Amino acid sequence: MKSFEETKQRLRVFCEERDWDQFHSPKNLAMALIVEAAELVEHFQWLTEEESAVLPASKLAAVAQEVADVQIFLIRLADKLDIDLDEAVAAKMAVNEQKYPADKARGNALKYTEFDDGD
Amino acid sequence: MKSFEETKQRLRVFCEERDWDQFHSPKNLAMALIVEAAELVEHFQWLTEEESAVLPASKLAAVAQEVADVQIFLIRLADKLDIDLDEAVAAKMAVNEQKYPADKARGNALKYTEFDDGD
Amino acid sequence: MKSFEETKQRLRVFCEERDWDQFHSPKNLAMALIVEAAELVEHFQWLTEEESAVLPASKLAAVAQEVADVQIFLIRLADKLDIDLDEAVAAKMAVNEQKYPADKARGNALKYTEFDDGD
Amino acid sequence: MKSFEETKQRLRVFCEERDWDQFHSPKNLAMALIVEAAELVEHFQWLTEEESAVLPASKLAAVAQEVADVQIFLIRLADKLDIDLDEAVAAKMAVNEQKYPADKARGNALKYTEFDDGD
Repeated sequence: MKSFEETKQRLRVFCEERDWDQFHSPKNLAMALIVEAAELVEHFQWLTEEESAVLPASKLAAVAQEVADVQIFLIRLADKLDIDLDEAVAAKMAVNEQKYPADKARGNALKYTEFDDGD
Repeated sequence: MKSFEETKQRLRVFCEERDWDQFHSPKNLAMALIVEAAELVEHFQWLTEEESAVLPASKLAAVAQEVADVQIFLIRLADKLDIDLDEAVAAKMAVNEQKYPADKARGNALKYTEFDDGD
Repeated sequence: MKSFEETKQRLRVFCEERDWDQFHSPKNLAMALIVEAAELVEHFQWLTEEESAVLPASKLAAVAQEVADVQIFLIRLADKLDIDLDEAVAAKMAVNEQKYPADKARGNALKYTEFDDGD
Repeated sequence: MKSFEETKQRLRVFCEERDWDQFHSPKNLAMALIVEAAELVEHFQWLTEEESAVLPASKLAAVAQEVADVQIFLIRLADKLDIDLDEAVAAKMAVNEQKYPADKARGNALKYTEFDDGD
């Protein structure tokens, strides 16, 4: 099992060897990240939801590459901002578990701000 | 150190308890992921590159939450498509190291298709 | 019927009065545009395609606001780059009509690069 | 001067001839639109703000094509949702003029929710 740490270090070496740090401001990395996210979205835009769940092998391989690109820029951005990705994810999961109690959220896709507090 | 595996499992439980699998087609998850990526971009859109590198603490905390949201949807999407994130990242890093040889890529942000094959 | 020209002029006044030109580099405007596009996407992410076609009135009104935001930033970006939106659209429509001949494109969502040139 | 109406009609014919209405749910069109917005962003991601304002001719031509793609999908989406783009833009401009009074917004890029209501 790889860790964020290992990829972070490998990316640092990769970027230093190419003198790319000059381009990697958080602003630019956020742009690059959303561009990769869009390349992911592009694979799905004309598919039905059902089709999106059973991709042919060649398409799945292409999607996996885009998934990796998003992950790579996310690790790089977190590194540049000194964000601990593991901690950030754990903290956000805890927030979500609070904001979306199972009994209110069950079977609907409402935003937590849309819950009817009724009774 | 957390692993993708641990978060993947925690997300499965979280989604099952809320009966959210019905919404989590890869198509929809890709949409949710890009929406979170945009919330990240929003923090940087009016900042200079320099400002984006030295965020005040409250802004950095907000950015860390968006980074976590992107990571969460990425892990969830990879899970639904049975993509091994670690493998995908390692494979893509290897591709990038090939496509962008240090001597051609040094100090420029050209796409590999734009290299001048000179001589 | 409004024209791009009219909105372009109104936006110029709006931004000058607020001294916002300093923030409106094409780079930043492209970021703002994609953020608005994502707010549009967010409305649709958990809907089925069918549901997305029959929005309740309050949701439709919210969507119309996001559509307007995208349009506003697009006009502003085109203005800053001196792109004539009408010309650009007409030129691209002509390109698309060429790239996607009706007989090859009928009933499929292939990219033109994916056409089977068979015979 | 072209109007949205004219492009809307031309797009209807274009899509009918290719039997593409089946793919053009608002959900899918929103995805296609953000993908085009990202292709626009991609042109700017490694440029400085200054560079983004003085694009070389070939890059500007490519950007104009992406701008047109965003516009085309926006008109198509508005058509499918029966949103009057001119009205929507005029209404949103009026909202913005209210939300961002010149004296509070001058020279800063705060969101209206971030204004300090002073005294």
